[in-house]
Amino acid sequence: MQALSENGRLDAPAERNAPIGVFDSGVGGLTVVREIMRQIPEEPIVYFGDTARVPYGGKSRETILRYSRQIIRFLKTQHVKAIVVACNTASAFALEEIRQELDLPIIGVVLPGARVAGEVTKNGRIGVIGTKGTIHSGLYREVILNEHPTYEVFGKACPLFAPLVEEHLLDDSVTFEMARRYLKELQECDIDTLVLGCTHYPLLRSTIGQVMGDKVTLVNPAYETAIELRQLLRDHRLSFAGEPLREKYQFFVSDDPATFREFADTILPCPTDRTRQICIDGF
Amino acid sequence: MQALSENGRLDAPAERNAPIGVFDSGVGGLTVVREIMRQIPEEPIVYFGDTARVPYGGKSRETILRYSRQIIRFLKTQHVKAIVVACNTASAFALEEIRQELDLPIIGVVLPGARVAGEVTKNGRIGVIGTKGTIHSGLYREVILNEHPTYEVFGKACPLFAPLVEEHLLDDSVTFEMARRYLKELQECDIDTLVLGCTHYPLLRSTIGQVMGDKVTLVNPAYETAIELRQLLRDHRLSFAGEPLREKYQFFVSDDPATFREFADTILPCPTDRTRQICIDGF
Repeated sequence: MQALSENGRLDAPAERNAPIGVFDSGVGGLTVVREIMRQIPEEPIVYFGDTARVPYGGKSRETILRYSRQIIRFLKTQHVKAIVVACNTASAFALEEIRQELDLPIIGVVLPGARVAGEVTKNGRIGVIGTKGTIHSGLYREVILNEHPTYEVFGKACPLFAPLVEEHLLDDSVTFEMARRYLKELQECDIDTLVLGCTHYPLLRSTIGQVMGDKVTLVNPAYETAIELRQLLRDHRLSFAGEPLREKYQFFVSDDPATFREFADTILPCPTDRTRQICIDGF
Repeated sequence: MQALSENGRLDAPAERNAPIGVFDSGVGGLTVVREIMRQIPEEPIVYFGDTARVPYGGKSRETILRYSRQIIRFLKTQHVKAIVVACNTASAFALEEIRQELDLPIIGVVLPGARVAGEVTKNGRIGVIGTKGTIHSGLYREVILNEHPTYEVFGKACPLFAPLVEEHLLDDSVTFEMARRYLKELQECDIDTLVLGCTHYPLLRSTIGQVMGDKVTLVNPAYETAIELRQLLRDHRLSFAGEPLREKYQFFVSDDPATFREFADTILPCPTDRTRQICIDGF
């Protein structure tokens, strides 16, 4: 039976029970998927990782926008009800343009991360780390200063962090040494809050925390994004309302699924053995 | 006036004076271009760097083959007379299939590198370092053992070397530490020859040399490839025979030229300010 919503519109269960589309340049976005699974476990998800063109972090705005548009066209073929851009670089470079072209609710990871950093800081001095693209876009700074014009925001690109994570050097002397170098500038800026502005970085939380010390709060936008996603679905009357699904999660990649699965299985609590490969240039 | 060649065929100057097409996943192949410029400075070159999809090293054979075919279709629009696959991963995964489809002379970097390693070694124990793709393909081993069945070949993937080079950490303690770890196994194998099986690695020659010590000869396939290319052009009567050109070198990339140029200018002796961007998926 269909429920009549508050505004008198008939809710369409088919639409509410459709999956959420989540995408990233590769495996990093799985840290966002993991948070969504934890916080709204009933929601079905279709994930796309652009493993044939990963990474996005050093590529241009124009290229990232083109890639994001192709991925969204693919996700729409999967009849998703909403889209999560689970990649900071794509959120920074492409989200605003895509939003204007799209007839679905969409969120990225930058706004939720920036918002909570602005709320958490006590001294108004916030650091942001991310890829070259994310930092050069200046979007974290822009969003934070828009809400809190007197704050100071310090960005630092950490291009080796993602390759180090992909080599599983999470708690390693080389990663620690790179963290010490990358974060030195931010330590000297007397920040009390640091945004982990790349989906790989939550996996380095322990190393980054050791370098920055107890007085600096680390903000993980993945966590905040899952919270905002739940609210977004409620606002659009799109929260899942059906019987629990057996095959709730689907994974697609643009390169060989084997390499993806190797990494995915270390992050996610569910199997990814049915991950499928698609040719993303065709979209 | 057209010259009559030894076999009585009329050489076509237009074809002889056409450029050589060289391609790589990004900037690494410029170390090969640099060698070609040194050894056959009269030859015009069209270079393509696939900077929108870089790196190739962790991607699958099928994907690298698809990318290589697209790039060759593009290079043919530039009327190249021969093709150099200046990327070890693409040479390992795609060269043999492409050769069968192509009506132009083509060489990669693996065969020249493997050949010279087989000639240089005294104890018949050879190490090869490269990307995951190059090492897992086993092509260096196959080529060396084909010529010298009693030799032993030890491969080791060094996936962080390319990102470290791209961050300009050439002579740095972090790079030294990673080299120490990656090369430990090879040191224990008592090799006397080490192939630098990725176009980024010649830029780490000093660090790798320090770790391996004086008794190990480092083989740079870029150098050998330029020598074989000169011979290949002679064999096909395709050596440049015209007036010196003013615009001898052309550079194309699939992402924003600015990032490419920043790196290119540290490697090449010529300006790259006219580098053009093309959409490679369209080929």
